[in-house]
This record gives sequence, structure tokens and C-alpha cells, in this order.
Amino acid sequence: MTRTDQATEDRAVTLVDDRAHAWRPEAARLRFREGLSGPTAGVAAGHTQANLISVPADWAYEMLLFCTRNPRACPVLDVTDAGAWTTPLADGADLRTDLPRYRVWRHGELVAEPTDTRAYWRDDLVSFLIGCSFTFEWALSAAGVPIRHVEQGRNVPMYVTSRQCRPAGRLHGPMVVSMRQVPPRHLSAAIRETSLLPAVHGGPVHCGVPSALGITDLARPDFGDAVEPEPDDIPVFWACGVTAQAAVVASRPPFALTHAPGRMFLTDARDEQYRVV
Amino acid sequence: MTRTDQATEDRAVTLVDDRAHAWRPEAARLRFREGLSGPTAGVAAGHTQANLISVPADWAYEMLLFCTRNPRACPVLDVTDAGAWTTPLADGADLRTDLPRYRVWRHGELVAEPTDTRAYWRDDLVSFLIGCSFTFEWALSAAGVPIRHVEQGRNVPMYVTSRQCRPAGRLHGPMVVSMRQVPPRHLSAAIRETSLLPAVHGGPVHCGVPSALGITDLARPDFGDAVEPEPDDIPVFWACGVTAQAAVVASRPPFALTHAPGRMFLTDARDEQYRVV
Repeated sequence: MTRTDQATEDRAVTLVDDRAHAWRPEAARLRFREGLSGPTAGVAAGHTQANLISVPADWAYEMLLFCTRNPRACPVLDVTDAGAWTTPLADGADLRTDLPRYRVWRHGELVAEPTDTRAYWRDDLVSFLIGCSFTFEWALSAAGVPIRHVEQGRNVPMYVTSRQCRPAGRLHGPMVVSMRQVPPRHLSAAIRETSLLPAVHGGPVHCGVPSALGITDLARPDFGDAVEPEPDDIPVFWACGVTAQAAVVASRPPFALTHAPGRMFLTDARDEQYRVV
Repeated sequence: MTRTDQATEDRAVTLVDDRAHAWRPEAARLRFREGLSGPTAGVAAGHTQANLISVPADWAYEMLLFCTRNPRACPVLDVTDAGAWTTPLADGADLRTDLPRYRVWRHGELVAEPTDTRAYWRDDLVSFLIGCSFTFEWALSAAGVPIRHVEQGRNVPMYVTSRQCRPAGRLHGPMVVSMRQVPPRHLSAAIRETSLLPAVHGGPVHCGVPSALGITDLARPDFGDAVEPEPDDIPVFWACGVTAQAAVVASRPPFALTHAPGRMFLTDARDEQYRVV
């Protein structure tokens, strides 16, 4: 898939149906189960979104430890028992089919991007649902902070940084961040509102200087779409759950399933449940 | 040890040396290494305290999953590699010797309460450091909230509740809570200040009615000391890291080491590091 195709496809949800913000989570999951494959930014207002990573059981302890040791990037919302595709976070959901698009990894290589993983499923898979920054965008909007990538109908831009995560056994890799351009007058609110939601990455890891994270060109994200800033906007970076995928690439477990970046799992949980005050 | 002996010994730190609040964490650890065995409430102002639980490696995944599934009771601050007794949270510390008192468990039975665990140590032990509510007492004090058990020179009272934790494999058990009597005019500050510290249990799980948690008599705590309320005080309950010990009792792993209730591990971390805003 070329970069242009990807970008066009990335906009599917917001361009095809601008009522997606009003969908109930179960309705969103059903549409994705039926094949809708676009990104989930702006879908099902106020409901918690999650990254998915499924690894064989003999890698589960190291994955859980990796998440525990890197809680800003990988805050764990739920862990399934081996082989299970259900979660208490979403009634009736099937983790094998209900995300818009998946990635299948063998020895750290991306081998497929299906919209349904039943042909790849294994009975020894332990699935991790990890908090996603799309969750806090509703809090940002409510506080008056503009969300440029939603305004522009794009997926959020994500970047692999030069910061290494704290390793856990065989698992290691760089931190991935998402970036939002924030007008200076909204910076305080953006930091405060996201800090109150530590289960979905919490406050920013950096504001202002992309090179401090080893990012050389904001116009060329590693995942998602480039976003146009307004004059005076400050780039603000939050740790991103795609960090777990970067650990798969770096650490090469024999098998892993993940969501495709920006195509998250919609839970029934309300964002308020994760707000500390 | 009788209840009276225990209570007398519990007061060791605060009665023997009321300058303990000013100790540096490394100085506190050295005193405990040398045999001081009292509780750590009020010791080393502003520094993060932690529960310790060490289990054999073949129980480590379930313990980490139990903590992940019960984050209010068991927020994980660090997990060691198997056999290691050091932690990045405390420079030069030895987890085998630097706590005031330990508990040794075999098949869920308490078999010893030593002040040094080197004779019990095993190369396959994975140690979990879990956030402790003593940490947030400095924030409470700074906000003007009186801490009755510190005023009264006692250990905090802890109670086994009727709420069951979410199990993880072989591990299950009830939630344990700590209780502080809070004057009504300070209740809002107590909730706000602790909610901003989710890594050390966060906000209360209940305020006001002990029976709502299955607690029948506040004067008879399951761990620690009874505390005298002032008129109008409201009992406020926070999830407690001793929950992990209750899981050991209920689930009977062949071996476990823990801290003794109220005798925590003093880290070098500052409480502010865990505050979300």
C-alpha cells in the first residue's frame, strides 16, 4: 500500500460518515466487524479506545512486565486469559473481528493487514488492551483545545523516538509518541486534562522541540498522517500504545497480532471512569 | 505475639525517635537493616513507601496479572528480575534486609516474621514493590488533613473486606483497606489529594459506612492498630497493598515473602514523582 493509498483509506471513517462521533461503541464494533476499516479518531464520543496486542502465552509475562515498566506508553486496561477473545470492557465484543484493521507479525516482520484475524488466531494468544490517546481527545475538545487531525479528517501522526523503553526480558524497543499541534493559549489545559487520565497515557512526555525526541521531520510521521499546524502551534507529544508494536519489531517474537495504527478497539467504558478527579 | 505486645512494638519508631520524619530514606533503610523493626508511618517525609511481595518465578505472571487487574489495591511501582534484591527505586538497597520486618509464608500459612530474610531467600524469587498509602499522608498533611494514627503514635488500621478482587489464574482473595478518620471539613481535600496519586492507591474506595465493606467493628482491625476518632470524624477507606498478602493466604502459593503490615520499604522516590498534576 502506498503512502497516498494509506492516507486516503485512513480518512474513511470521518469522510464516509461524519456522524461517527455519535455511534454507540457496540454499533461501531459491528460496522468494523462487517468490514469498515478506517481509523477510529473521533468515533463514539466519550468512550474509551484501546490498543490491542496479542502474543503467545510464553511471551505474556514479558509483555505484561514491559507494560508495567513503561506505564506512560503502555497503560494496561485489560489482559485476557490465554485464547479468550472477550473482555469485560466490551459486552459481546470479539477481539478477533471487531477492530477496523489488524496487523499480523511473524518474527518482527509485518506479514498481513487483515480486517478479520480468525484465520490467524491461536489458542495460546494472550491479548492486552492498552490505553489510547484518542480517549482523551474528548476531554481536550470539552476544554476547548482544537484537535487538528480531526479537523483535517486525518489519522493522528505518530513517530518512533530515540528514547528506549525500559526492557523486560526478551522485550525491548523505542518509545512511540503521538503528536498534536496545540495553540499556546490552550497548552495549559491540554497538559492538565490529559494528566488527569493516566490510564490513557496521561500528560505529555514532551512539548515543543521534536529533535529532543529524535524526530527529524514532523511532516513525515512513521504512522498515521502528517497534520498541518496553524501559526504559533506548539507540537505536543504523548506516549503512544504503538510502542508495543515497536517492541514486537525490535524484539521479534515468533508471532503477534496487533491493531493497525489508529484503528483501535472501541470499549464500552466511559472516559470518566479513567479520570482520577 | 499478643495484640498488646504487637501494639507496643508497633509504636517503636515514633516513640523511640520522633525525628524519624526527617530521616533520609537511605538512613532509614540502614536502621532497619541494623534491626529497627517498627512501622514506617511518618518516616522519611515526602518519600515513597512500598509494599513488598516476593513469589517464585512460576507465580510471577499471575501475581503481576493480579496486580494489573486490581490496580487500586496493588499499583505496581517496580518488579525485579528473578533472584534480584535490588531496585532502581532505591540506590544501594537490599530488599532482603532493609525492611523493618518481614513475613514468610508457606502454602498460605505465616511461618515466620524475621527482620532479615537472607536465610529464606531463593534464587527464583520475583519481587513486587507495590504503592503504599503512607506515601500520600504527606500530601494529606500538607493539605491540612489530620492523620489520627500518626497523632496517636500508632500503625494505620487495616481491614479485610467482603469485596473480592478480580482473580488472576491461581491467585484470588479479598480486598484489604486502610482506614483514616477524617473530619468532615477535610473530606474534600482528602479525596482530591489522594486521587491525584493513583500510583499509591489513589482516592478512597469508600467513605462513611464500614458495613458497606463488610467491616463489623472498626475497633478490631485485622492488621495495625485501632485508632480513636474525634467527634464527627468520618471513616475513609483506601485500597491497601496488604491485599497481595490476603491473596497469598487465600491462594496458598508454596512460598512467599512479604513485608509485615505497616513496615514498608522506603524508596528514594519522591511522592511528587507519582502525582499526576
